[in-house]
Amino acid sequence: MTIELTKLPSGLRIVTDHMPGLETAAIAVHVGVGSRHESEREHGLSHLLEHMAFKGTRRRSARAIAEEIESAGGDLNAATSTEQTAYYARVLAEDTDLALDILADILIDSTFDRDELEREKSVILQEIGSIEDTPDDLVFDMFGETAYADQPIGRRIIGTAKRVASFDPPSIHSYLKRHYGAETIIVSAAGAVDHAKIVDEARARFEHLPFAAHPQTPPARYTGGDIRLKRRFEQAHIVIGFEGVSYTDDDQYAAHVFANVVGGGMSSRLFQEVREKRGLAYTIHSFNWSYSDTGLFGFYAASGGRELAELVSVSLDCLAQATQTLDEAELGRAKAQMKVSLLTALESSSARAEQIARQLAVFGRVIPRAEIIEKIDALTIDEVRAAGGRLLRSVPTVAAIGPVAKAPSPAAVAARLGAM
Amino acid sequence: MTIELTKLPSGLRIVTDHMPGLETAAIAVHVGVGSRHESEREHGLSHLLEHMAFKGTRRRSARAIAEEIESAGGDLNAATSTEQTAYYARVLAEDTDLALDILADILIDSTFDRDELEREKSVILQEIGSIEDTPDDLVFDMFGETAYADQPIGRRIIGTAKRVASFDPPSIHSYLKRHYGAETIIVSAAGAVDHAKIVDEARARFEHLPFAAHPQTPPARYTGGDIRLKRRFEQAHIVIGFEGVSYTDDDQYAAHVFANVVGGGMSSRLFQEVREKRGLAYTIHSFNWSYSDTGLFGFYAASGGRELAELVSVSLDCLAQATQTLDEAELGRAKAQMKVSLLTALESSSARAEQIARQLAVFGRVIPRAEIIEKIDALTIDEVRAAGGRLLRSVPTVAAIGPVAKAPSPAAVAARLGAM
Repeated sequence: MTIELTKLPSGLRIVTDHMPGLETAAIAVHVGVGSRHESEREHGLSHLLEHMAFKGTRRRSARAIAEEIESAGGDLNAATSTEQTAYYARVLAEDTDLALDILADILIDSTFDRDELEREKSVILQEIGSIEDTPDDLVFDMFGETAYADQPIGRRIIGTAKRVASFDPPSIHSYLKRHYGAETIIVSAAGAVDHAKIVDEARARFEHLPFAAHPQTPPARYTGGDIRLKRRFEQAHIVIGFEGVSYTDDDQYAAHVFANVVGGGMSSRLFQEVREKRGLAYTIHSFNWSYSDTGLFGFYAASGGRELAELVSVSLDCLAQATQTLDEAELGRAKAQMKVSLLTALESSSARAEQIARQLAVFGRVIPRAEIIEKIDALTIDEVRAAGGRLLRSVPTVAAIGPVAKAPSPAAVAARLGAM
Repeated sequence: MTIELTKLPSGLRIVTDHMPGLETAAIAVHVGVGSRHESEREHGLSHLLEHMAFKGTRRRSARAIAEEIESAGGDLNAATSTEQTAYYARVLAEDTDLALDILADILIDSTFDRDELEREKSVILQEIGSIEDTPDDLVFDMFGETAYADQPIGRRIIGTAKRVASFDPPSIHSYLKRHYGAETIIVSAAGAVDHAKIVDEARARFEHLPFAAHPQTPPARYTGGDIRLKRRFEQAHIVIGFEGVSYTDDDQYAAHVFANVVGGGMSSRLFQEVREKRGLAYTIHSFNWSYSDTGLFGFYAASGGRELAELVSVSLDCLAQATQTLDEAELGRAKAQMKVSLLTALESSSARAEQIARQLAVFGRVIPRAEIIEKIDALTIDEVRAAGGRLLRSVPTVAAIGPVAKAPSPAAVAARLGAM
């Protein structure tokens, strides 16, 4: 391990992974706040703020931000999710100072100009429109809203057109002041980086960050349920899911293996039964997402409306059977795939910068690869089957768009699973 | 450079890039044939063959192929394009032998079982359906068909439902025999690889490849034109483009810089004028694609139907003005970005395996990074402006889906460009 971690007196954490042989560096500023921490009136504000961070500071116009980083051949990016917001830069080794200067500037000194805000709202309205044209995104938004009915954690991250239109500079300032503080921010860097240098650079730029407590949020309450939207799509896009496990759940690794065996790769049960044996879908895969206190497990598929009923029955049978018959060979394949994925992430500076920041945020430390491998290796068939059984025990959530007359109700899903 | 190249007596080429510090390897088998080389009756066959390669050989069932590679934690993938078909594996260093064994097996010894074929046709019909639900893919298919009217190079790679249904094992065998030969195949490997070992492994497995001449195809004839589809999408998805440059064109690098300045990054003219200044779109970017004897240049945007007319006018003005006013700072930014992109590709084993195979196929050699940088550095403002002027001189191609009542005709595009 080449991980080094420094905590400044302000509470800001700086973590780096020096990867020999590289000439570029990936930097991430990870803020431990996301859509889940918004009040109802703030719905969409985390994402709007992420956009507005690029729209000008006291020292730099929006155009200057873009031009400075791109003049160095670098690029900037950002993403808002349920429990975090992250800002990324990728630059040559000699430009980490520039990258940190820009990242600190946009996070601490943005001006949130009124005219820029109005224009950026238009951009977000266009982004909302583009999600409406992307059924495989839209169906997951609907899925989240139904799995956690009427709770911030289930709301779509982008917000609604009406709510986005309502935001003004004071609403952004208030949100920023409440959440973007030294305690909630982690600066991470991977690739051609030197820890001491990154610490010096980050200290100089982030030391004036005000205090902000870790955001509080009510515990998530998984509800399950049913939503379907008849839209003129060619295919039925469906997500069927269940309550999953949190990051810190004892079943975390077992649930991951179960999801992998059921719908991870080409040799997985869903891929083999639905696509290879029956040709019912081009895309079908499982997912296993974790949050700090809850999680979601399930699968997504797209198929013609006529194939949907058979696809659903076959898939549910795959899930139920796996809790009984998952075998040694499948367990071995899942373990091997998880280990190689770990290694692949270690070989990519951007994946690595993101990973170490996330682990630090969630677990308070970077987990050594050997420790993860030990946990993976220790998993038994019984543990994985039991974790699968636990996953399937919750009320189902069904979300579907397109020609979805044949989508099942949650009760029908539960009945099919129970009949196995 | 750590590139090594070996050409076997059969004509098969093997190229590797040993990247120190990595523990995984990426392997690509690059076949110099794609949708462009299909007869009309074969439309979609390159892509169908790519699918069928995974459906069983004399030694391995479809399931065994998936299970063997995934048991080693690796994965397989493939992609068909206009002038090439490529098969990829990613594995641990010690498993390159397994990866090459499977790749050779599926390319040389596939059985194309009739039942498997019928099922795989259903999968491809589902894939065709999924493209219909992805307007940003669909609009590019329509764009290609219109830019090269009635020619194989413009046809959509996936084929049509009717044509795909018509294929039988003999049609696949005949296509394979004609095109998959030692002369058309390049085996490349990057990452934790040893050239001599990869050569030995590849020689043992690929030496019985029959001869197949490089496929011939009539020269492409760019036609330009107009296609629009009123579909119930939320946004208007539009591509406006022109004849571009081939891989070997003297203007190759200048065209690339022009496209970058116009619509490459956040500081590009289209992004600044359309998104940042006016908030007319969330997504807008240019493209600059090359083929062996032609190319396509243009831009894609998605916006509400009401914003479309203004978006198109502003964008066309950006293009036309850039041919007159593109400046030193923009040239510098584009050069810096191209150089860092080159470096980033060098740091990813999968990007590198693909890149060296493609360069070998197109230029007959792997181009040293220093040579590319020298060419980039030598570019002048006049050359880039002139290349831009040349790009805009051809008949425009316009493809649009959604609420596209306000999409311009090619004549209107040409008039607007000429008026600047």
